[in-house]
Amino acid sequence: MYSGGIRWLTGLVITGTLVMASQPAALADDDDAITYRQLIMKEMDAESSALGMMISDQIPPDALASQAKALAFSAKGALKAFEPKVPGGEAKPDVWAKWDDFSKRMQTFAQKTDEMAKAAESGNVSAVSERMIDALTCKQCHDTYRNKKN
Amino acid sequence: MYSGGIRWLTGLVITGTLVMASQPAALADDDDAITYRQLIMKEMDAESSALGMMISDQIPPDALASQAKALAFSAKGALKAFEPKVPGGEAKPDVWAKWDDFSKRMQTFAQKTDEMAKAAESGNVSAVSERMIDALTCKQCHDTYRNKKN
Repeated sequence: MYSGGIRWLTGLVITGTLVMASQPAALADDDDAITYRQLIMKEMDAESSALGMMISDQIPPDALASQAKALAFSAKGALKAFEPKVPGGEAKPDVWAKWDDFSKRMQTFAQKTDEMAKAAESGNVSAVSERMIDALTCKQCHDTYRNKKN
Repeated sequence: MYSGGIRWLTGLVITGTLVMASQPAALADDDDAITYRQLIMKEMDAESSALGMMISDQIPPDALASQAKALAFSAKGALKAFEPKVPGGEAKPDVWAKWDDFSKRMQTFAQKTDEMAKAAESGNVSAVSERMIDALTCKQCHDTYRNKKN
């Protein structure tokens, strides 16, 4: 039964409707591009928050390695979501106007997150914590390339 | 600079405040357990939606393998989030009353999602699509173990 698929398809239809309502001039493909990168950011936000709960000793770090790997693989594919030059959502036009800088930052983020995930294989929370500081430069990048939410 | 960490810590504080406001009797550790499993579900929802956009040809499947891997690693660690017996959020008490069934479903989900991610390494969208139907039984499990959102 393809009920899982129906679930996300329903979600996408709802999301798509909202995006189109606020941006009537956008083409369907552009809406998809925006929706996709918003999903990537949403997943990395949840992944890093869950990992953060382990690092800050709020929950046991039983799933430290798998959680760090999930974030690393999301980071690995994240730049692809910005390759279509489709301004909109919270992305500033500078993402594409300063693509060399933006893509370099995203590649560094992916590389350092991967190093963090490798360190997590040992189950050593401190080793992950140290690398997390260096890897998750979310705020610096958001301050430069993301419009603040209203 | 640890601004990434500050970002998720801020998010957690806000989330924690909301949970505590609606459930004043819960202990702080219980709030953390609930927040954690909600993050895990949130990340898998975004991961599967992003993967779904590739399968349904809404976006190019350039990041097919990394996206499937991200979901597989999240699924691998997901059961851990439910091990603390803390009813609340949208989880029905049956999660723990029928733990054998619940944990078996989650283990099967993790196993089949891993098989899907291995198939994704080839970049073959059809191979992922076929396994996705079998792996992502989200709705069946939600119908049984999750209270509907109001």
